[in-house]
Amino acid sequence: MSANETPQTSATYDSAFLRACRREPVPHTPVWFMRQAGRSLPEYRKVREGIPMLESCMRPELVTEITLQPVRRHNVDAAIYYSDIVVPLKAIGIDLEIKPGVGPVVDRPIRTRADLAQLRDLTPEDVSYVTEAIGLLTRELGATPLIGFAGAPFTLASYLIEGGPSRSYENAKAMMYGDPELWADLLDRLADITAAFLKVQIEAGASAVQLFDSWVGSLAPADYRRSVMPASAKVFEAVAGYGVPRIHFGVGTGELLNLMGEAGADVVGVDWRVPLDEAVRRVGPGKALQGNLDPTVLFTTPEIVEAKTREVLDAAAGLEGHVFNLGHGVMPSTDPDALTRLVDYVHTRTAR
Amino acid sequence: MSANETPQTSATYDSAFLRACRREPVPHTPVWFMRQAGRSLPEYRKVREGIPMLESCMRPELVTEITLQPVRRHNVDAAIYYSDIVVPLKAIGIDLEIKPGVGPVVDRPIRTRADLAQLRDLTPEDVSYVTEAIGLLTRELGATPLIGFAGAPFTLASYLIEGGPSRSYENAKAMMYGDPELWADLLDRLADITAAFLKVQIEAGASAVQLFDSWVGSLAPADYRRSVMPASAKVFEAVAGYGVPRIHFGVGTGELLNLMGEAGADVVGVDWRVPLDEAVRRVGPGKALQGNLDPTVLFTTPEIVEAKTREVLDAAAGLEGHVFNLGHGVMPSTDPDALTRLVDYVHTRTAR
Repeated sequence: MSANETPQTSATYDSAFLRACRREPVPHTPVWFMRQAGRSLPEYRKVREGIPMLESCMRPELVTEITLQPVRRHNVDAAIYYSDIVVPLKAIGIDLEIKPGVGPVVDRPIRTRADLAQLRDLTPEDVSYVTEAIGLLTRELGATPLIGFAGAPFTLASYLIEGGPSRSYENAKAMMYGDPELWADLLDRLADITAAFLKVQIEAGASAVQLFDSWVGSLAPADYRRSVMPASAKVFEAVAGYGVPRIHFGVGTGELLNLMGEAGADVVGVDWRVPLDEAVRRVGPGKALQGNLDPTVLFTTPEIVEAKTREVLDAAAGLEGHVFNLGHGVMPSTDPDALTRLVDYVHTRTAR
Repeated sequence: MSANETPQTSATYDSAFLRACRREPVPHTPVWFMRQAGRSLPEYRKVREGIPMLESCMRPELVTEITLQPVRRHNVDAAIYYSDIVVPLKAIGIDLEIKPGVGPVVDRPIRTRADLAQLRDLTPEDVSYVTEAIGLLTRELGATPLIGFAGAPFTLASYLIEGGPSRSYENAKAMMYGDPELWADLLDRLADITAAFLKVQIEAGASAVQLFDSWVGSLAPADYRRSVMPASAKVFEAVAGYGVPRIHFGVGTGELLNLMGEAGADVVGVDWRVPLDEAVRRVGPGKALQGNLDPTVLFTTPEIVEAKTREVLDAAAGLEGHVFNLGHGVMPSTDPDALTRLVDYVHTRTAR
């Protein structure tokens, strides 16, 4: 399939979500939630019972079911492909596992040039379960767009270098500051792997992609520009020909929003720390924004959720394109009904 | 002792550190490090052996020794009183302990109005060991200023509400959003306790104070202004009469720097994410800035540390007052010699 023959129907193309990403007029502000497929849903916990995280990402029927669950329940405007940031690393043979309550643990962390040998290119055959799952999904989803999912090179590098959970990324940043050539080579390889992983998803039918740079908010702008942006830009450039919207998000990235847009995103995700009217000043024209209700607001009453949602919508009033989302992922203890009500509220409030 | 008779000598008053805090000309840019007294030093690990964290904060001779260790070793321009954020809470009888590798754990978290009864006013007698330690310290320190230490109301409230470690502060923020009156009353009480704790330190001889709002970077500006700033301002106002510089710091607070200054700080601490020339634009005139080398830079070579330090000093060139510091605390695995070299480098490079 060529870059110009993505399988999306014209109804998908005309969906509120994809129109907002393209900064076109919308019938209502579209809504989806980062981590909408996951632990907040009892039906998710049920189907995941006894199945380790990474294994769950490799079973097409299970991926399809989990991806569809929040679409059925919440009436969100887009599905996000159920996966994990480390899936493409596992797929090329990196020895890692996701320990419950801990996170990804890498058997042999990457610290030297010799360690780069662990990284080979990713081929569609490495992730045939992704192609299969997206085939199933697009049939089930109808006009609802599917967002492809990948971790960005910086965040992948942080996992690979630290080898386990970290709050300060000291080994990763020590390599970034201390051995810029090794760092750049590592990120460049990860950019190729990430781009290949996103291409598989788009060619199988994803109508948009989101590149998660979860931990990049730990960097100052000059370091981001010098040491991270080239690799992220390579990923975005590699999928530019497909014409699907490219979303980019990281938490705590207020200082980096303009650069994350400049890296090649069509839609810049914003956490709850920066009001959207300020975010648009930083990002500049020509980009849509996604966000940004504080996910902890959902632990309050419906009235307070509505009041805080109005603050977000008011701040977004002047935007060319706005995709409503939380400012970070849904927290596991969130009441699913609060999410369903929130979708309905945004749809009703913004109906044109 | 009245507010105008702090025991500092004129040599202390004329120290580079206090002059920089007051935005007066300095012989060199003063340097100290958050967490300079602590686990990065072998002599600290030695004297702490077998002594639980909170107990170590209550032994005046030990506090004195630990506070002095980095001054002796690194030639820093200020000492920071060795304590822990939860010390004043422990002192008023809150049932908490600091679990190694975990952090403060509160036996009965504060979640309801009835729980506020756990909080009573702090008197100097509750922390007589602080007065004693600072008496010992000021004699040993000579002209080197001592910075008093306290956690800010928001951060204390987060610990008390969560009851243990948290990455997202969901219970604290749910109270902040969901029960603003209870939240305000809790923060107001914590402001009084914090102010009393700082007064004890100033009256015993501290020449400056730093109010740590470690976790406040998790808030959006409008929420900070509405729900946190009144309590922080109350603390600063309560110690204004002493005329000692008031420093305010939190990590990830790029969006809040102006408000943290407005709350009453004389010196605004900046983490490494915001270059100091940008920080001064946000904070505005009339405040000194403190910061902001990324602490992970210290895991590289001396040449790279110097290059990154020059970037900080260059960005600080236009400031009225600059106190050099890291952008967050010294990390435990930092090589102490790297810190000693850094102090020397800043002193030499900025000598007028």
